[in-house]
Amino acid sequence: MAKFLTNREENYSQWYNDLVIKADMAENSAVRGCMVIKPYGYAIWEKIQAELDRRFKATGHVNAYFPLFIPKSFFSREASHVEGFAKECAVVTHYRLKHAPDGKGIIVDPDAKLEEELIVRPTSETIIWNTYKDWIHSYRDLPLLINQWANVVRWEMRTRLFLRTTEFLWQEGHTAHATREEAQQEALMILDLYADFAENYMALPVIKGVKTESEKFAGAIDTYTFEALMQDGKALQGGTSHFLGQNFAKAFDVQFANQEGKLDYVWATSWGVTTRLIGALIMAHADNNGLVLPPRLAPIQVVIIPIYKGNEQLGSISEIANDLRSKLEKAGFSVKYDDRDTQKPGFKFADYELKGVPVRLAIGPRDAENGTVEVARRDTLTKETINRDNVVTHVTALMEEIHQNIYRKAADFRAENTYSVDTWDEFRDIIENKGGFVMAHWDGSTETEEQIKNLTKATVRAIPFNAPAEEGKCVLSGKPSHRRVLFARAY
Amino acid sequence: MAKFLTNREENYSQWYNDLVIKADMAENSAVRGCMVIKPYGYAIWEKIQAELDRRFKATGHVNAYFPLFIPKSFFSREASHVEGFAKECAVVTHYRLKHAPDGKGIIVDPDAKLEEELIVRPTSETIIWNTYKDWIHSYRDLPLLINQWANVVRWEMRTRLFLRTTEFLWQEGHTAHATREEAQQEALMILDLYADFAENYMALPVIKGVKTESEKFAGAIDTYTFEALMQDGKALQGGTSHFLGQNFAKAFDVQFANQEGKLDYVWATSWGVTTRLIGALIMAHADNNGLVLPPRLAPIQVVIIPIYKGNEQLGSISEIANDLRSKLEKAGFSVKYDDRDTQKPGFKFADYELKGVPVRLAIGPRDAENGTVEVARRDTLTKETINRDNVVTHVTALMEEIHQNIYRKAADFRAENTYSVDTWDEFRDIIENKGGFVMAHWDGSTETEEQIKNLTKATVRAIPFNAPAEEGKCVLSGKPSHRRVLFARAY
Repeated sequence: MAKFLTNREENYSQWYNDLVIKADMAENSAVRGCMVIKPYGYAIWEKIQAELDRRFKATGHVNAYFPLFIPKSFFSREASHVEGFAKECAVVTHYRLKHAPDGKGIIVDPDAKLEEELIVRPTSETIIWNTYKDWIHSYRDLPLLINQWANVVRWEMRTRLFLRTTEFLWQEGHTAHATREEAQQEALMILDLYADFAENYMALPVIKGVKTESEKFAGAIDTYTFEALMQDGKALQGGTSHFLGQNFAKAFDVQFANQEGKLDYVWATSWGVTTRLIGALIMAHADNNGLVLPPRLAPIQVVIIPIYKGNEQLGSISEIANDLRSKLEKAGFSVKYDDRDTQKPGFKFADYELKGVPVRLAIGPRDAENGTVEVARRDTLTKETINRDNVVTHVTALMEEIHQNIYRKAADFRAENTYSVDTWDEFRDIIENKGGFVMAHWDGSTETEEQIKNLTKATVRAIPFNAPAEEGKCVLSGKPSHRRVLFARAY
Repeated sequence: MAKFLTNREENYSQWYNDLVIKADMAENSAVRGCMVIKPYGYAIWEKIQAELDRRFKATGHVNAYFPLFIPKSFFSREASHVEGFAKECAVVTHYRLKHAPDGKGIIVDPDAKLEEELIVRPTSETIIWNTYKDWIHSYRDLPLLINQWANVVRWEMRTRLFLRTTEFLWQEGHTAHATREEAQQEALMILDLYADFAENYMALPVIKGVKTESEKFAGAIDTYTFEALMQDGKALQGGTSHFLGQNFAKAFDVQFANQEGKLDYVWATSWGVTTRLIGALIMAHADNNGLVLPPRLAPIQVVIIPIYKGNEQLGSISEIANDLRSKLEKAGFSVKYDDRDTQKPGFKFADYELKGVPVRLAIGPRDAENGTVEVARRDTLTKETINRDNVVTHVTALMEEIHQNIYRKAADFRAENTYSVDTWDEFRDIIENKGGFVMAHWDGSTETEEQIKNLTKATVRAIPFNAPAEEGKCVLSGKPSHRRVLFARAY
């Protein structure tokens, strides 16, 4: 166990913070609530971006860029949007600094006050729909399938590296459609895209569903979500896709002439995932030795470490290592050969375990002689010695196996920690003492939902798509219910 | 000539604005000075990013992300930096909005005033060096070679799409080194990287050199620049690379223990290019028919347009077109087959000319019969008919030829508009009546430079690296000078 990490079982929260720092992923900055994403953490974000961007483009989307600032008045246009977003914003009020009259430092120039304050975007529906007004006139201009990679700011009181930060990075898709059906399909298609990415790249099993009225996006008709279970029994919302109906089109007066020449309001979706996914990745898979990265998102997939005494041994081992590296790179893996002589092999082993590198190859003098190499897996911490000629085949198979194993482990954990609950006592007991996903009947009212939240801090994470119709009674109110919904405490 | 474009020779500035709008590159947003980068413009930025990012990584750099906000006090730390950047900043003073007491809209909550104002980053030296303080302790931590892709804000009074906007996108490299020599080499290596990119990807010949004291970056020891000549005879600074000496290390107290165990301040560089490069691309190559994009940055490299009457003809032409497309895509080109039946071929021809697509293939019924295809080049507007079997070979060669031709045209234009000038009358006449690059002697004093600027609006763009030593007299003051420098009016 990495000694400098807090034990996960003793203090999960501290373990997470330790890990993010020690694995060189991110750190808090001098600006309250804003993080610095360090190169190793950012490399994971780049891999997430590359794959999502490829998928967005493959489904017909293009990227664009809209302003960081939004005029304050835009927020008031959509009635429920203002409720959800106007509260926690960074507000730009001035556009100039000047020297302090006393010569000490600089001050805000009171003469440079903006007529209308600008809000640093917490999300871009308003500025984008104000722009779409000029872009959309006819059904020929539709669909409009645009995505943006950007930073956004939501003034958070309690922040946590990756999971909740004042500034975060994300992508936000904003699409416009001629019909309700097409917009709904788009929102659901994107949810599937996200969920597929989560399962196949993050090795993270997710539950897809729809949010309740009180949990949905401010301005949406429906919010679709994918939810994952973390190792401490709390849920994490991976991302959301919103069917916005005609709400923003009406707020910004975006009408189009349909095929019959009649004017109608445009139908909309928006959807996003954020740097929070990196937090999910850590919380779902990491252990007391450090990160466990799924191979498809690992910045370094294979690390090669020489074990040697003296320059002569290092020379012959390096020759073998460089040959292996080039073969593995040719097979598409990202490989690091760490021949630093300032650190001992044991230190390096622990360091790459901490950083979650999926496969480690070690080559000692006996391996050099025998034509072998020691292969260690990060996920199981097991080792075996194989013939050097088989390395590429072996590593290729191993990567797939590691992905499957990490996924299965998370799926098993979720299965073990998902409860079908019928009584309030049991509900409360599980939420408070065990954690996990609780499938329970709920009467569908916001009042009951609110009450349950106040009593247990558990919320309806989703009404799962795959929950079968089933008659039952609300776990709190006893009123009739037609399907179970997913409750949990959440990040 | 595209009739909706202003004639370039009549009103260059209006021609540029028209072109940016009509070619769907960008537009002004509802926020003064901030632009919306539309999908076609953003696709060019993505190509610029991809190639630069590849080059940064190939030279050992990694990406990271630092906060959007910088505490106001950070700016005062480096004496000359505050002079250069404190003036034109967006200032965040509050973090909450609330409903107006009169129920009309929302207002800034006066209770949510920040203790210390936050500046939206105009550049990130201060916040990054404040962070590096914790990352650098020993020579073993060096060099630190970090780049960031980000948005920045400088409150500009007069803005222009791509060329000067309040918010813009850029990359900013920030490196830390153990020695002066290494930092200087880094700054120069990056300048070479930029210049090579400009010449080989943007087809833009550039002049490399060093800025004068008054034109250098606020906080730098030396600013290296690459300058290009636009078609209206004005210079455009493509990007800069700064040798920062130990200025920021001293301002933020970043010291390291060198190999002898002695403490020393870290040596620094910073360097960046912005979305302005897209403006340069347009201004350098476009003509009265629209954009002329260099093939390596064109989002669509080949467009295929069918010329047909009726569905039967379209069917057989589409079969050929799709076959050509897949062959060209396999050869690495990005291809669009435009079979929309809502637009006539003539309209499509003009539209793709406007958008600067390097190569257009047209297939009519006779081509279908004869096994031929009509190939048109955007740069020369010439056409020829070739055998369909040769399309891939032909297009491959053509792309290289187009790149070379665009580059040569720009280089010839620059040669014709570069003047070696020895008298003040001639200097003034050329700057005021002809435009272009003027190589002239200058006495090296800031006073003279300022005077020349006041008299002619021309500035020293660079002291070119390749300017030979040559004794002469300053074109204004008559004082001795040892080499000519590059003067021009500039964007």
